[in-house]
Amino acid sequence: MGKVLIIGAGGVGRVVAHKCALNPNTFEHITLASRTLAKCEEIQQEIKDKWNQDIDVAKVDADNVNELIDLIHLVKPDLVINVALPYQDLSIMEACMETKVDYLDTANYEHPDTAKFEYGPQWALHEPFKERGIMGLLGSGFDPGVTNVFCAYAQKHYFDEIHYIDILDCNAGDHGYPFATNFNPEINIREVNSKGRYWENGKWIETEPMEYKMVWDYPEIGPKDSYLLYHEEEESLVKHIKGLKRIRFWMTFSQSYLTHLKVLDNIGLTRIDPIEVDGCKVVPLHVVKALLPDPASLGPRTKGKTNIGVVCEGIKDGKRRKVYIYNICDHQEAYKEVYSQCVSYTTGVPAMIGAKMMLEKKWYRPGVWNMEQFDPDPFMEELNRQGLPWHVMEMDPDETREIE
Amino acid sequence: MGKVLIIGAGGVGRVVAHKCALNPNTFEHITLASRTLAKCEEIQQEIKDKWNQDIDVAKVDADNVNELIDLIHLVKPDLVINVALPYQDLSIMEACMETKVDYLDTANYEHPDTAKFEYGPQWALHEPFKERGIMGLLGSGFDPGVTNVFCAYAQKHYFDEIHYIDILDCNAGDHGYPFATNFNPEINIREVNSKGRYWENGKWIETEPMEYKMVWDYPEIGPKDSYLLYHEEEESLVKHIKGLKRIRFWMTFSQSYLTHLKVLDNIGLTRIDPIEVDGCKVVPLHVVKALLPDPASLGPRTKGKTNIGVVCEGIKDGKRRKVYIYNICDHQEAYKEVYSQCVSYTTGVPAMIGAKMMLEKKWYRPGVWNMEQFDPDPFMEELNRQGLPWHVMEMDPDETREIE
Repeated sequence: MGKVLIIGAGGVGRVVAHKCALNPNTFEHITLASRTLAKCEEIQQEIKDKWNQDIDVAKVDADNVNELIDLIHLVKPDLVINVALPYQDLSIMEACMETKVDYLDTANYEHPDTAKFEYGPQWALHEPFKERGIMGLLGSGFDPGVTNVFCAYAQKHYFDEIHYIDILDCNAGDHGYPFATNFNPEINIREVNSKGRYWENGKWIETEPMEYKMVWDYPEIGPKDSYLLYHEEEESLVKHIKGLKRIRFWMTFSQSYLTHLKVLDNIGLTRIDPIEVDGCKVVPLHVVKALLPDPASLGPRTKGKTNIGVVCEGIKDGKRRKVYIYNICDHQEAYKEVYSQCVSYTTGVPAMIGAKMMLEKKWYRPGVWNMEQFDPDPFMEELNRQGLPWHVMEMDPDETREIE
Repeated sequence: MGKVLIIGAGGVGRVVAHKCALNPNTFEHITLASRTLAKCEEIQQEIKDKWNQDIDVAKVDADNVNELIDLIHLVKPDLVINVALPYQDLSIMEACMETKVDYLDTANYEHPDTAKFEYGPQWALHEPFKERGIMGLLGSGFDPGVTNVFCAYAQKHYFDEIHYIDILDCNAGDHGYPFATNFNPEINIREVNSKGRYWENGKWIETEPMEYKMVWDYPEIGPKDSYLLYHEEEESLVKHIKGLKRIRFWMTFSQSYLTHLKVLDNIGLTRIDPIEVDGCKVVPLHVVKALLPDPASLGPRTKGKTNIGVVCEGIKDGKRRKVYIYNICDHQEAYKEVYSQCVSYTTGVPAMIGAKMMLEKKWYRPGVWNMEQFDPDPFMEELNRQGLPWHVMEMDPDETREIE
């Protein structure tokens, strides 16, 4: 049915490549490109060994628009799936406009030098995309992505009006190390030290970092400390869910994890400016990274589950209603299937499904769009088929799973 | 009255030099020597500026016996005060034997490659010292040192027999940093991760690291978490306090301090083997040291007090008795006087007093001795005069200040 060019061969890129290869009727030709060809080749070999499918690989610097254009001319994809760094969204979108090829990503643009992330710079490309007759689908990961689709699904099938949304993201994985991180610890630190934000009655309300904490009882996992953060899907959902009065985002962090980050930060070990040690210039954060377990080593040893979902509260047929829609992902099962645990799996599978929606024209309109702007039903069906089954829990409107 | 050679120009060396200079009738001539001449010169200048006293300085490598002998021949001291590193006790004692000069130190010998510290290697020099007609006074700091003298004083004036001794060391200083250390963090880590030990009914009983914790209500400070550690004065006190049934040593650590050390250790940041970072070989612990506040910067900003003392319980005239003898030192007052806060002050002042006892022949016998083997009274008088006043609290035998 179509050709895709996947840019980015990290954990998410691996999942997208595997999952596309597992849907060969849709993805007839796959090219996986990244700055480091060896990472692409490793995934290429895995896919050959495990699924007996062939994919192409290529080397590209995603910051370099001309290189991207050359590669797109060479590969001639129907769609570019961007799972590179959020810093690179705009250069890849520019290359897509230049070559008139559809675009999909999983996380919104971040300026490399500021902690600001917002849809503005990408939404600004709606008209240019439309004029060129191409489509851009923004944020087709889990959160953003599936959480937006869950809200659209609740809106379509369960509510006349949704008034309150809580997005709840729990990772109860245990890798057995006292401390390790899948990501750049700098990004984790920034996340924890950034002010939070939520939206209520038409206004954004800023919170101190980690100011709001609750203990939520996650189905199949149990009670976990959950902290209010700002998360990017809130920006589009407040525009697209009509009648909304409040939306908040919560993420679990263990006390031990927060303590480790805090200590690193206290001592200055998260600094990214070089200091003089043993006659050398070294960046403290790089020392920490060098000592932490290799993120790639976490996959095979991480046990436990993630539970990400949305609780919507509102009105249906004049009566109050509360619905909790969530997915549970098991780290070890995900790893067994595609050599990546849930953090990458829950992002990569929806990226593939979003691409499938576009190639099959089930979701297709020129311009730049967010997930909740399309019919959720075909996407929800695919989630069940492609490894991310979901549950709908009808709650009593006065019931809460917040236990502290 | 006499000439002293002080070896070591760290925090303790600074206090000893200042305090000797403040007792010019006893210390008629002072030479301060260390590996780094500039540190000696800085202290020399301080003493000139503050007390208008002159001292000499010299450069010496305290690991090098021949260099030490040459320096002793040059300076011709009556007494060598060793406040260098514990690793260097034996080389300095050897130089003293060679030159027939009296010796004093504040901490017992530690082998550089093992965590073992014990008096054995120094006690073995008792006969050689005696034969040469010279004296060695071991452990004339606060703990060991003053704590031993407190026990001897309790023995002499308050008890027929002491059955139980708890040595209680509280540092309630606050430097305002989330984490900083006066010492090499490696030594702190080792202290916290070492097995504890106490002595009961003639036997040493080993404990897991930090296994025993209590909350003790320190006079003028209040309740603090206190952990059972092994400390070197226990080794000599069990030999010299007759009738003793149990001796334990407790030191305060704040939860935050322990957490910081634990996290550093968890991540591998206390490793002392070099790792490859940014194309360089660096030792992780050196990176931590480079980031931590300079220990020298802590003095002026540390507020609060230390309280170090002993609680003795036993029999007097057939009746049970309990006595708590302690000193309180105020960090800011100590700093105002000699540019060092209490951690150095409480060690340096007793070193000077021990030297004074020896030069005045109030404590003088050829051989190698511990503090509790001499009459405590003149030493106790000097403590009151020289800045470390002490208190005796008569407790009800059934009373405890352990509140948890």
